Amino acid sequence: MKITGILTPHMVPLDARGEIHEAELRRYVDWLIARGVDGLYPNGSTGEFIRFTPEERRRIIKIVCEQAAGRVPVLAGAAEANVRETVSACEVYAGFGARAVAIVSPFYYRLSPESVYAYFREIALHSPIDITLYNIPMFASPIDVPTLQRLAELERIVGIKDSSGDVAFMMRMIAAIRPRRPDFCFLTGWDAVLVPMLLVGADGGTNAASGVVPELTRRLFQQTRAGQYEPAVKLQYRLLELFDAMLYSADFPEGFRAAVELRGFSMGRSRQPLSPSQQVNREKLQNLLRCLLTDFGVEPPPEGCPARHPAEPGPDQIGQLVNDVMQQLNRKGLV
Amino acid sequence: MKITGILTPHMVPLDARGEIHEAELRRYVDWLIARGVDGLYPNGSTGEFIRFTPEERRRIIKIVCEQAAGRVPVLAGAAEANVRETVSACEVYAGFGARAVAIVSPFYYRLSPESVYAYFREIALHSPIDITLYNIPMFASPIDVPTLQRLAELERIVGIKDSSGDVAFMMRMIAAIRPRRPDFCFLTGWDAVLVPMLLVGADGGTNAASGVVPELTRRLFQQTRAGQYEPAVKLQYRLLELFDAMLYSADFPEGFRAAVELRGFSMGRSRQPLSPSQQVNREKLQNLLRCLLTDFGVEPPPEGCPARHPAEPGPDQIGQLVNDVMQQLNRKGLV
Amino acid sequence: MKITGILTPHMVPLDARGEIHEAELRRYVDWLIARGVDGLYPNGSTGEFIRFTPEERRRIIKIVCEQAAGRVPVLAGAAEANVRETVSACEVYAGFGARAVAIVSPFYYRLSPESVYAYFREIALHSPIDITLYNIPMFASPIDVPTLQRLAELERIVGIKDSSGDVAFMMRMIAAIRPRRPDFCFLTGWDAVLVPMLLVGADGGTNAASGVVPELTRRLFQQTRAGQYEPAVKLQYRLLELFDAMLYSADFPEGFRAAVELRGFSMGRSRQPLSPSQQVNREKLQNLLRCLLTDFGVEPPPEGCPARHPAEPGPDQIGQLVNDVMQQLNRKGLV
Amino acid sequence: MKITGILTPHMVPLDARGEIHEAELRRYVDWLIARGVDGLYPNGSTGEFIRFTPEERRRIIKIVCEQAAGRVPVLAGAAEANVRETVSACEVYAGFGARAVAIVSPFYYRLSPESVYAYFREIALHSPIDITLYNIPMFASPIDVPTLQRLAELERIVGIKDSSGDVAFMMRMIAAIRPRRPDFCFLTGWDAVLVPMLLVGADGGTNAASGVVPELTRRLFQQTRAGQYEPAVKLQYRLLELFDAMLYSADFPEGFRAAVELRGFSMGRSRQPLSPSQQVNREKLQNLLRCLLTDFGVEPPPEGCPARHPAEPGPDQIGQLVNDVMQQLNRKGLV
Repeated sequence: MKITGILTPHMVPLDARGEIHEAELRRYVDWLIARGVDGLYPNGSTGEFIRFTPEERRRIIKIVCEQAAGRVPVLAGAAEANVRETVSACEVYAGFGARAVAIVSPFYYRLSPESVYAYFREIALHSPIDITLYNIPMFASPIDVPTLQRLAELERIVGIKDSSGDVAFMMRMIAAIRPRRPDFCFLTGWDAVLVPMLLVGADGGTNAASGVVPELTRRLFQQTRAGQYEPAVKLQYRLLELFDAMLYSADFPEGFRAAVELRGFSMGRSRQPLSPSQQVNREKLQNLLRCLLTDFGVEPPPEGCPARHPAEPGPDQIGQLVNDVMQQLNRKGLV
Repeated sequence: MKITGILTPHMVPLDARGEIHEAELRRYVDWLIARGVDGLYPNGSTGEFIRFTPEERRRIIKIVCEQAAGRVPVLAGAAEANVRETVSACEVYAGFGARAVAIVSPFYYRLSPESVYAYFREIALHSPIDITLYNIPMFASPIDVPTLQRLAELERIVGIKDSSGDVAFMMRMIAAIRPRRPDFCFLTGWDAVLVPMLLVGADGGTNAASGVVPELTRRLFQQTRAGQYEPAVKLQYRLLELFDAMLYSADFPEGFRAAVELRGFSMGRSRQPLSPSQQVNREKLQNLLRCLLTDFGVEPPPEGCPARHPAEPGPDQIGQLVNDVMQQLNRKGLV
Repeated sequence: MKITGILTPHMVPLDARGEIHEAELRRYVDWLIARGVDGLYPNGSTGEFIRFTPEERRRIIKIVCEQAAGRVPVLAGAAEANVRETVSACEVYAGFGARAVAIVSPFYYRLSPESVYAYFREIALHSPIDITLYNIPMFASPIDVPTLQRLAELERIVGIKDSSGDVAFMMRMIAAIRPRRPDFCFLTGWDAVLVPMLLVGADGGTNAASGVVPELTRRLFQQTRAGQYEPAVKLQYRLLELFDAMLYSADFPEGFRAAVELRGFSMGRSRQPLSPSQQVNREKLQNLLRCLLTDFGVEPPPEGCPARHPAEPGPDQIGQLVNDVMQQLNRKGLV
Repeated sequence: MKITGILTPHMVPLDARGEIHEAELRRYVDWLIARGVDGLYPNGSTGEFIRFTPEERRRIIKIVCEQAAGRVPVLAGAAEANVRETVSACEVYAGFGARAVAIVSPFYYRLSPESVYAYFREIALHSPIDITLYNIPMFASPIDVPTLQRLAELERIVGIKDSSGDVAFMMRMIAAIRPRRPDFCFLTGWDAVLVPMLLVGADGGTNAASGVVPELTRRLFQQTRAGQYEPAVKLQYRLLELFDAMLYSADFPEGFRAAVELRGFSMGRSRQPLSPSQQVNREKLQNLLRCLLTDFGVEPPPEGCPARHPAEPGPDQIGQLVNDVMQQLNRKGLV
């Protein structure tokens, strides 16, 4: 059965000591399923897989599979230090009942396409569970179309999640693979262009925004599938505003963590230390969220949508302010 | 009147001596208009503006304005060596009857947003003709959203042509500008994602493919505007195949020149010298074109669509071939 | 005769109307020669060749060749719109008495190595004057080592100026070319690492700093050539400080223009419009210059070297200031 | 005591089952020390730290510290999944007797300078052992000069290893830090420009080439320190040739593994799967190595230096070969 719809690459709540907050994670999983996500994707980039130990990563998958309990499929992030460790994780996650694993392309070193192919091929030959490739060129060795074509010849490989955000690249992949592998699934990880990606044939997305407003990503998916492009695009614009606010408010994924907290979960502090100047602007984010929920009739907060950005200065004022600062710094010889 | 639809950033035919082939250019302009392009865009990147002298650039605009004779608007590429020269070109092109000019962001030096702003502002304050900005970050200093916001406060600036191919960036621009400037036009220069761009609200495109298959870019535009997304996406996939074949077959814009020739125009040889190994694969391109025209019922060539790629090897065979070559080179110690 | 030593890629003074200030240019040329530069390089990147018209570029070369009058060789920047125009400029510059031309790799379009080769080959086959290639990958299509090897087989091509700043790349070029072409000259355009470049065998440099402190770049060159590395490195550190101040104080080459003015020349305003916030911090630059000249005993200004950066805050203070600003912006919801 | 000289970021031999080959690792450590390396740097990029499990990383440091037994200092790569795990590794490595740890900047996510600062600060406040920062911008979040300045205020941080290969960047770091922290050490990880880096004041290097030809990197260091630049540069050119052959013959660090094998160690197969087409050209590498050792009188192999590249074709022949292949591919419509 092909993987489709919106899967949530969810974050992991931490407790006061910085440990996995299991009860909150279970509550979060229930909340996401109740709000209609089509699947869960623990140990993704949003899930900060790299900041957990191998043991913690296994525990996360175990908790999520248990709690999902078959209600929605689990796509388990399974990349480990090397092929052997990764295959071993695949075996364990198969035992936990995951639907498939997602494996990010080799990172740190930038490998050639030939090495990327050899890496995934070796894993695919030994994995007891279906594999989706994970292409995220800003963080890991890119998977190009010819390499994907070679990998799609392996049955164990059943799909790709692409976080490049490049719609033309998605089309090139689909054009190259779908004729021979109609079962192969194409998921986008770039929330900003979910509607365009679905329009050109993507099967769904693994979208961090669905961990914050699962009601709206679901609606967007359903509207698009039903050919209701006008309301879908309108909603896409609002999700883009939220996505950008989360993505650019602080180093990824801090903005997403703050937003999940605003939906009522205790997420804890990041394992990546933050300085005071790096705090997410929660008020701005909260206003955005409130207006989104109010405008689309989803659990509208009692206070409703505040007058939108009443005191927000125009670009001139910002430009003026920046200029003032620069001139001051310049006068002091600091820049 | 807002600039909308598909405008052709057309190439300029050269004669045997490498000079502008005026008669063929006029014939080409007529052909494009007859096949339904919504406007002409001489002296763009596809039009190789940088390989002509200032005098030749003026002559090109003169010929195109004369020949268009008001049947369709002309968007005249007007970037010259500096602000004064550019303003001077603007004045001349206004006299020729151009609808507006398009001015590429400063290139060679990579300028800061502040300099990009100052550059366009200065031109806008002195130009007697409407200006569309031209953002092409792979070749020129990028125009970012805050800079665009500041520039959109100037009345003379009436639109932007963006060739980044980034759908989310198009949405960010539209979200930032349209509420205050509903008359501001957004055109995409990236043919590969024309339908997605139109879906999110772009007003049209300046697309090199429209210089080759104007019948089909027109149809794609009309279908998308009419909300007929299914056939539009189907056509978009076919245009992507053609676009990629033209774009990646040789250094830009040689593939486009070859394709225009296949439609029956004598384009001459590039002013950029080419070595024998750089010849475009015309046979492959011709088959693509024939099939496109046949499948969509546009001037189908008598020979129809050849059996599609009958002898085309799969990726394995290509991979095998490349491996063979690499091993030979390796054995000889050449790599 | 091989081109060696320090050649100045000098700027062109403009008058109040923005026209070439011929008298000041001639005075500047005399000043540079009197202070010991080994050659002049008009129409380079520092010389803003791209902001002048073709006619102006010719006039600049004419003036410089006339004024140099054989005292030092002139390396004339000769890139024009296409091969024919460039060859035509080569002919004219040969007539003016230039020693050689320098031709930047094709820019705007990013061309493949094969096209870069074809371009320079075509020019070399028709030029009546020696050619040095100009590699500046941040602005133009890169010239790689295999392409350079092929080009070095053409007699007309006698050297390369490289502005990558990559010492290992310089070594790779020298290792590949010098055994077969001992006459081929290697010049670095990256002032920051002039001593290391000379250490590994470069023949000299075309350095913008030599347009500001020709006395010191000359001394640095002579010390390095004499094997006096200790004082040369000491001087290199001071030149790096000046170079960085000029390079990063504003969009290139505004910092260099300001510095030349501080040496007593009327340079005029840039043809690229500048906003108030882009003004170079002249006071800081002046202090740097005064201290350099004083410390090295070159025309020490009467006021000497001001106490170095007396009020300069440490990095904490700057960090604190930036944090303050960011927090204010954040509180206002601006970022 | 400042860390200086050449430290070897060595690889880890694996046995037939892919496990750490302890006996061979100990033999390799002895061999390196006997040939004069100034220190050992296990768990670096060349050491493939990321392909080992946390437990294996600890075992590697334990073996190396034991075997070094105080003869040379050990700089232990200590980056783990997060700050807590990293601090824990620091404690363990202090107990093993390591001289200091080296911690690569956060990777996978590209973090802002503020986050890079917060990360290292947090570790420095809790580490019981001295820390050297590790900047490798092609693989990890860059450490810029202002961030380094802030970090150098922390006593626990005693140096930086930079693998950017940018000599000007090294100078900028030294100029910013050394006046206040004369004890701070600057090491370069870019073997290609070791002499230039030492010339401008670097204290040494952590160079993969020293794991292959420790006799020569030692000689190069000593010659440079003694001011014997001429022979040092000559040797640097030969090391560059070897370095490039190792670096570009296959995905990093396969070329280095092959070269260590050629010096007599059994290194095993990489944990990153390799396809047949990715095999390193050992013959070419072996000839390079033999000639190096023969020419510099270091354990010259009995067969001496083979006639250098007797059958090596010139660039024309290679170019011709590549053209032939491309034309064939083109004719078949494959490209």
